Amino acid sequence: MEFSSKLLERAVNEMSQLPGIGKRTALRLVLHMLRQPKEQTIGLAEALQNMRHEVKFCKSCHNISDVALCEICSNPNRNEEVVCVVEDIRDVMAIENTSSFKGLYHVLGGKISPMDGIGPHDLNIESLVTKVSKGEVKELIFALSSTMEGDTTNFYIFKRIQDFGIITSTIARGISVGDELEYADEITLGRSIVNRIPFESSIKI
Amino acid sequence: MEFSSKLLERAVNEMSQLPGIGKRTALRLVLHMLRQPKEQTIGLAEALQNMRHEVKFCKSCHNISDVALCEICSNPNRNEEVVCVVEDIRDVMAIENTSSFKGLYHVLGGKISPMDGIGPHDLNIESLVTKVSKGEVKELIFALSSTMEGDTTNFYIFKRIQDFGIITSTIARGISVGDELEYADEITLGRSIVNRIPFESSIKI
Repeated sequence: MEFSSKLLERAVNEMSQLPGIGKRTALRLVLHMLRQPKEQTIGLAEALQNMRHEVKFCKSCHNISDVALCEICSNPNRNEEVVCVVEDIRDVMAIENTSSFKGLYHVLGGKISPMDGIGPHDLNIESLVTKVSKGEVKELIFALSSTMEGDTTNFYIFKRIQDFGIITSTIARGISVGDELEYADEITLGRSIVNRIPFESSIKI
Repeated sequence: MEFSSKLLERAVNEMSQLPGIGKRTALRLVLHMLRQPKEQTIGLAEALQNMRHEVKFCKSCHNISDVALCEICSNPNRNEEVVCVVEDIRDVMAIENTSSFKGLYHVLGGKISPMDGIGPHDLNIESLVTKVSKGEVKELIFALSSTMEGDTTNFYIFKRIQDFGIITSTIARGISVGDELEYADEITLGRSIVNRIPFESSIKI
């Protein structure tokens, strides 16, 4: 791609560094910005700069936060003894939306994935082990994706903390609410039979 | 969507103003930025700011340029008497890539589209009419999209300049090179039969 302007070219090249955005999409976005009022592009640029310079991570759960201890961790109404281990802030937002969890979170910042060069030391695992070793946690809920990497990470953490004698659980895997059985994959269906629950507890929710 | 950080929220909101980028995609992009080195986000923000502040439009053809008269308009080897009318810089880049056009361009900056509130006065049409009225142009090639809006724009410009006695042409519509006839739509196929060309001229390219 040859550009008639170096400024345009640089903007397109920087935009196309983002995941899922190629040169053509980047050019379309940048041309859109040129058609909009100047303030809009300046606003975007400033928001990105401010965020990158000033964003903090909660010192306890590693969630993104504007203050040293995030709103969830500093909320006295939440149960500090139950900690839900998640991959990133999107999972925190998803679980918070359900309003069904009143404990705290621990954000790992990713999953162990040797293929992508991510090992246990690239994630916030040590601070979790320290937290557990101090006896502050009674139950750890693993809420990672149900993939090879998620299972590996669960198992690694489980091995590290199994001697501290706390309860560990993992979110239930089964048929999605509203799904028809005939379209469910066999592994999910198999697991949902093995891990069946008392009918009385299923009608409470 | 509830965010744990105002900085993050503002960045996501600004990103999701871009066309084709919703809140979820914006969040994914912004979280990606937070995982990358700080310099990358700052570089993107600066490139956008610089572009928006300093980008110029060529005073003759209205193409995006870093200087007052763009490289194409200031190139003495190009034929000033043939002007190709296009919608935006992407079309200039596409035609330049074919290396089959040695004239100049005129970038309208859009198409007449009453549905989107874009009239002739929102486009660079007056300067084109002035250019033609001065007798600088011998042939005008319409190279807009083959849509209702493109055809309307072509016709509007044609009406404005038809009394100046210059040649007007439009790029050929027909079956794409490499396409199979049975899959071509009937309008395109019909036009390509009506506008058939001598076989000798088809084997030159």
